[in-house]
Amino acid sequence: MFMDNDVEGGNLGPYADRPRVFPSMRSKVHTPLIFRILMGINVRVLLVFLLLGLGAIFYVGAKTSPIIVFVFSICIMSFLFSIYLTKWVLAKDEGPPEMVQISDAIRDGAEGFFRTQYGTISKMALLLALVILGIYLFRSTTPQQEASGIGRSTSAYITVAAFLLGAICSGIAGYVGMWVSVRANVRVSSAARRSAREALQIAVRAGGFSAMVVVGMAVIGVAILYATFYVWLGVDLPGSMKVTDLPLLLVGYGFGASFVALFAQLGGGIYTKAADVGADLVGKVEQGIPEDDPRNPAVIADLVGDNVGDCAARGADLFESIAAEIISAMILGGTMAQRCKIEDPSGFILFPLVVHSFDLVVSSVGILSIRGTRDSGSKSPIEDPMAILQKGYSITIVLAVLTFGLSTRWLLYTERAPSAWFNFALCGLVGIITAYAFVWITQYYTDYKHEPVRTLALASSTGHGTNIIAGVSLGLESTALPVLVISVAIISAFWLGHTSGLVDESGNPTGGLFGTAVATMGMLSTAAYVLTMDMFGPIADNAGGIVEMSQQPESVREITDLLDAVGNTTKATTKGFAIGSAALASFLLFSAYMDEVAAFAQEPFKQVDIAIPEVFVGGLLGSMLIFLFSAWACAAVGRTAQEVVNEVRRQFIERPGIMDYKEKPDYSRCVAIVATASLREMIKPGALAILSPIIVGLLFRILGSYTGHPLLGAKVVAAMLMFGTVSGILMALFLNTSGGAWDNAKKYIETGALGGKGSDCHKAAITGDTVGDPFKDTAGPSLHVLIKMLATITLVMAPIFL
Amino acid sequence: MFMDNDVEGGNLGPYADRPRVFPSMRSKVHTPLIFRILMGINVRVLLVFLLLGLGAIFYVGAKTSPIIVFVFSICIMSFLFSIYLTKWVLAKDEGPPEMVQISDAIRDGAEGFFRTQYGTISKMALLLALVILGIYLFRSTTPQQEASGIGRSTSAYITVAAFLLGAICSGIAGYVGMWVSVRANVRVSSAARRSAREALQIAVRAGGFSAMVVVGMAVIGVAILYATFYVWLGVDLPGSMKVTDLPLLLVGYGFGASFVALFAQLGGGIYTKAADVGADLVGKVEQGIPEDDPRNPAVIADLVGDNVGDCAARGADLFESIAAEIISAMILGGTMAQRCKIEDPSGFILFPLVVHSFDLVVSSVGILSIRGTRDSGSKSPIEDPMAILQKGYSITIVLAVLTFGLSTRWLLYTERAPSAWFNFALCGLVGIITAYAFVWITQYYTDYKHEPVRTLALASSTGHGTNIIAGVSLGLESTALPVLVISVAIISAFWLGHTSGLVDESGNPTGGLFGTAVATMGMLSTAAYVLTMDMFGPIADNAGGIVEMSQQPESVREITDLLDAVGNTTKATTKGFAIGSAALASFLLFSAYMDEVAAFAQEPFKQVDIAIPEVFVGGLLGSMLIFLFSAWACAAVGRTAQEVVNEVRRQFIERPGIMDYKEKPDYSRCVAIVATASLREMIKPGALAILSPIIVGLLFRILGSYTGHPLLGAKVVAAMLMFGTVSGILMALFLNTSGGAWDNAKKYIETGALGGKGSDCHKAAITGDTVGDPFKDTAGPSLHVLIKMLATITLVMAPIFL
Repeated sequence: MFMDNDVEGGNLGPYADRPRVFPSMRSKVHTPLIFRILMGINVRVLLVFLLLGLGAIFYVGAKTSPIIVFVFSICIMSFLFSIYLTKWVLAKDEGPPEMVQISDAIRDGAEGFFRTQYGTISKMALLLALVILGIYLFRSTTPQQEASGIGRSTSAYITVAAFLLGAICSGIAGYVGMWVSVRANVRVSSAARRSAREALQIAVRAGGFSAMVVVGMAVIGVAILYATFYVWLGVDLPGSMKVTDLPLLLVGYGFGASFVALFAQLGGGIYTKAADVGADLVGKVEQGIPEDDPRNPAVIADLVGDNVGDCAARGADLFESIAAEIISAMILGGTMAQRCKIEDPSGFILFPLVVHSFDLVVSSVGILSIRGTRDSGSKSPIEDPMAILQKGYSITIVLAVLTFGLSTRWLLYTERAPSAWFNFALCGLVGIITAYAFVWITQYYTDYKHEPVRTLALASSTGHGTNIIAGVSLGLESTALPVLVISVAIISAFWLGHTSGLVDESGNPTGGLFGTAVATMGMLSTAAYVLTMDMFGPIADNAGGIVEMSQQPESVREITDLLDAVGNTTKATTKGFAIGSAALASFLLFSAYMDEVAAFAQEPFKQVDIAIPEVFVGGLLGSMLIFLFSAWACAAVGRTAQEVVNEVRRQFIERPGIMDYKEKPDYSRCVAIVATASLREMIKPGALAILSPIIVGLLFRILGSYTGHPLLGAKVVAAMLMFGTVSGILMALFLNTSGGAWDNAKKYIETGALGGKGSDCHKAAITGDTVGDPFKDTAGPSLHVLIKMLATITLVMAPIFL
Repeated sequence: MFMDNDVEGGNLGPYADRPRVFPSMRSKVHTPLIFRILMGINVRVLLVFLLLGLGAIFYVGAKTSPIIVFVFSICIMSFLFSIYLTKWVLAKDEGPPEMVQISDAIRDGAEGFFRTQYGTISKMALLLALVILGIYLFRSTTPQQEASGIGRSTSAYITVAAFLLGAICSGIAGYVGMWVSVRANVRVSSAARRSAREALQIAVRAGGFSAMVVVGMAVIGVAILYATFYVWLGVDLPGSMKVTDLPLLLVGYGFGASFVALFAQLGGGIYTKAADVGADLVGKVEQGIPEDDPRNPAVIADLVGDNVGDCAARGADLFESIAAEIISAMILGGTMAQRCKIEDPSGFILFPLVVHSFDLVVSSVGILSIRGTRDSGSKSPIEDPMAILQKGYSITIVLAVLTFGLSTRWLLYTERAPSAWFNFALCGLVGIITAYAFVWITQYYTDYKHEPVRTLALASSTGHGTNIIAGVSLGLESTALPVLVISVAIISAFWLGHTSGLVDESGNPTGGLFGTAVATMGMLSTAAYVLTMDMFGPIADNAGGIVEMSQQPESVREITDLLDAVGNTTKATTKGFAIGSAALASFLLFSAYMDEVAAFAQEPFKQVDIAIPEVFVGGLLGSMLIFLFSAWACAAVGRTAQEVVNEVRRQFIERPGIMDYKEKPDYSRCVAIVATASLREMIKPGALAILSPIIVGLLFRILGSYTGHPLLGAKVVAAMLMFGTVSGILMALFLNTSGGAWDNAKKYIETGALGGKGSDCHKAAITGDTVGDPFKDTAGPSLHVLIKMLATITLVMAPIFL
């Protein structure tokens, strides 16, 4: 405020001598409407409502299954734990006023964008909900549904309610991720002035808070829906629905989650990378000022971007991953239990919920194992934060293996196949090993300790061109090992399940697909800890930005730089996780889709035959969708970044005093440009992703009915889904890995290799980093969401394709 | 020679005043062994042998079918026409001695590399022939084969002979492309001193020569094989093979052609682009000297590269495209004729040969329509060469539509379905329209007259990073329209064929796939003219290089620049053609593969079910193969280019006089580096492409036999093929278009837009062009070949997958 007046009055003389801080841009503290209403109510009344709600939930849970009660209890406990973590983080000091001011500016920018973005998303979600309602009210129903008394309108309301709940929960997950991050960043900066270890601990606990909330909400959301439908529809009563068909009703939840996550990831991803690229291109390359320098007019937009892109969007992304994976595994568990005539199928159906409940427990232990105390007495002032995080991960994973084995024995033991649980435990192990292998491969290709990134850095020494060629080749090559690992995982888990001893009535083994599902759960059995490490990254990045902007001493910046570098690695790792689980979950949802089509068509639908021209065309279109989507996502960043570049250049020309700290850059202008542009740009790729499977399905349905080809629409969509999934996995791996490798090749050169900072080699490496930004943080992560959204949308829309 | 002595004696004084030419590096004129033997024989004896050979061919042809005689006659006439074209081109003057010297250096470099490269390729081809022989000698035979008396050894010899003939013909096609190009380049340069129109005519006629030879050889090769097998095996005699099964024996020819084309394209593509990128990065970017400047030590290597990469490799590529497409269409025609019990199936089987015979005729007319006479009296000295070429193309295409209709009526008329020929004529029209659409789309995305390239150029103004992001997005986006076009083409051609009235014994329509095949032929019905335009590009490019190196006046350079720019467009267009035909041909070969597997397994094999985990994994692996292959192809260029950059930098440092023309650069060193490196680098991706389908097929065959899953190997390979084809089409479109767009964005800026030559914007555009080089001229075209090679290798290797 005080500076604004100076600037407006032309009084710039003393500005250069003042501490180099910039005023807050916030107008007033914003609290979401729902919180304002809640805060308006008397605390005791609130508590009574809360207890009543909890009681109702537990009552419904108890009517359903003791397993549900167990899941509820664990989720509630993890929410309590996350409240403890927030209180702990918020109790830390916010540092000097210059830090607080910057942090306030970031928070305002982030919350402002979040409000507008989610406003747009919620309007689209409501529209889509109406469309779904319309479709379901006019579609036909399956004989099973008729038999169980679920008419058109019931199934329509169920689907729409699940969709909206999924959308809302996803929104909350995103908000929570951002809420804690914009508060923790300044506290980490402040702690970095005292000790590296304390800063690390704050960042980890803040990340842990949102991880607990995100995973817990995914689990409890599905559990509440399941229990409510169970009681409401009178499942398992005579003449009513069978419990094994229940999970299919939850698909709407997954679709709602992936719908919101897609736009959150697109909008956030475009925001963060457009600001980043724009800031770097003028700041670093043209003006030669360091990253996050307060003289760069786009720096606040860049820091805001970390929060809306990395925190909010990643929260929504992981929420959706877990929800989709839980639901698909529940569907498969139900189908298999029904085929095998297992006496109590609820163990098979509820298994994923229990696995993720244990995930919450073991991850809490992992988060708590990272302590801030040892720092004071330690000899070396800075330990390797990666080693600390890795130790916590090892603890988590050992516990996860144990609890996973326990869960399989508890829930998957059946007298029909006494050793089946052990086979499934091995499937879980396959998943955990796959996760480990993905982490290793990602690190091999993106960490500058290994050869690929060093070769990439060397390629920078011969110019911008060879740097890009080498990075593209590295990214394309890096798809090979993950595909081999995922292939081995799919086949071995399938065969472990197949040979588990579970057979259907005619004696055919049936456990194969469920084995794959269990492997997916194994892969995600430490999801909360992985998400914690992921959230850690942007918080540390932001803290570094605040430290740089508030011109703290070099030693403080060193600490946040170290944390930031570790954050880059953990972020890359999480993406490997997300792709692996997306690949497996899509494969599972694909089989659910085929079952669903068969149920509606009342004829077997077991094969998708790619030798039929139309089906081959469907495959072509599916793969093309991935390319086009990636194109539009990258182009959106490029276009917006160009706007930022022009704005920043303009400010540097029109306000020549900026470079000498004599004039204040107009941060808010950049924030506004990026926010407007990313809202505009997220619509086109998002609409493409949602509309194209629907349009293709309807078109070929019509073509099929003209040419006497039954189920043509459903088949073409199936091929589209499969080819899209395969291409999407490969494209996402390519984009994420090349982006990460370029980033770290630049960091490697910045350590002094090949000429170090400011050399021509460094400039070429910055070009690579710039290109990698939209790859790894916009298009790549959006593809994870897209893959799963394709799977859920086809499942929800299945009735209209035939 | 004279200069070498000066340099070695340290006598550099007068060097700067001499005409700026550089000595030839050739040691002695090289003539291939086969020519030396032929030239040793008396001319009359030779003539007698030639006539005897011709007589034998025509005798065999006459025993087979009058259609074959027609095809032979047209091919012989087109060879005579091509001899006329060469004589015409070679009669032109070679210009002043400085041009001849440069041209000699290019010719020596190109022929030297060709010898070494094809030496390596022929060794690998022989090895593979032995492997095929071994496989076929130990494999089982189909009941049809047993019935027709073709035992294991006969089918083994047939396949190996066809493979070797295909490989040899492909080698000749490549050699011919290069032979004429290294001779025509200097004649075009020389003519450019006189008139643009004459230069254009020489380049077109030289391109026409190799196009005639390449297409003619593909047609006559298949026709000779067909006729020989027909007579040798006593086809259609009682107790012998049916003529409808004959085309399957020709697959080895296609595989041989694609095998050689793959390595030719890889080796040549790596050579040309490594030299180009290396020369540009130091010459243009670091030293600021123009393209093809004689001071650049890598300039001769760059010019050699145009010949071995663009001419030789593209000749082999197109030869293989046409051969694969003819064979696949013949197989389908045979299968369909058999199913429909058509009285004389030879019309359906030989239809593709006739279409391409007419192709030779109409393209000759098109080539001759481009005349050099009008130039002298014309008012404007330089006409738009694109318009001239386009006029020739229009003439060709109108004639092609007419002859295509004629051919369908002649060969595809059957009394069983009197209107079928008209439906097939419409299929051909679909193909021709598809070709037109591809040309239009390619031009839209790569020509700077249209918006995409202008947007790309604008993105260069904000830096290297945004240029690359915009180019990648453009390339990814450009996949959408071609996929839509190809989808519509496949479906509409399929339905036109399906509704043609041709039905099998049970009354089911059977003409669908053949309709698609006819559309493919329609697309390629002007192949010879298209190849002429394609060959025109590198010849013009080389001519420009010679003009620049021999320091001709600006007006001459302007003419060759204009021709070069047109060449870029025609090259991009041909790639669109090549991908479109590859997509269709692969789809056709895929169905042939399924028929072949069914014949061996003696059970129906109609479906490839991607819901089976192993089959899904096969798809994953197929797509991954494309990514990995592209990675290795790009990385090979990047690595080799880095070697060139270091060598060129070294020469500029160690010989500071180069920049002032006081010292001579060591061109031969760069030539040697690029040649050695590209021979080394072509092995890895090539081996990957050939070995991976074989390994995957065998592995899953073994897995299938363990787990009691019949035909698993064959199914997994089928999925691999389909997913690989789809991903390959998209990846090739992405690589070709983005590369072409970057190239032309740079050219657009060089016309003076956005700051023009030397501006920062231009530098960013050069980075994009450099990145695009391996995309559009190494990885992209290699993928066309890879797609078709995958289809032929699985077909030839089918017996070992089950």
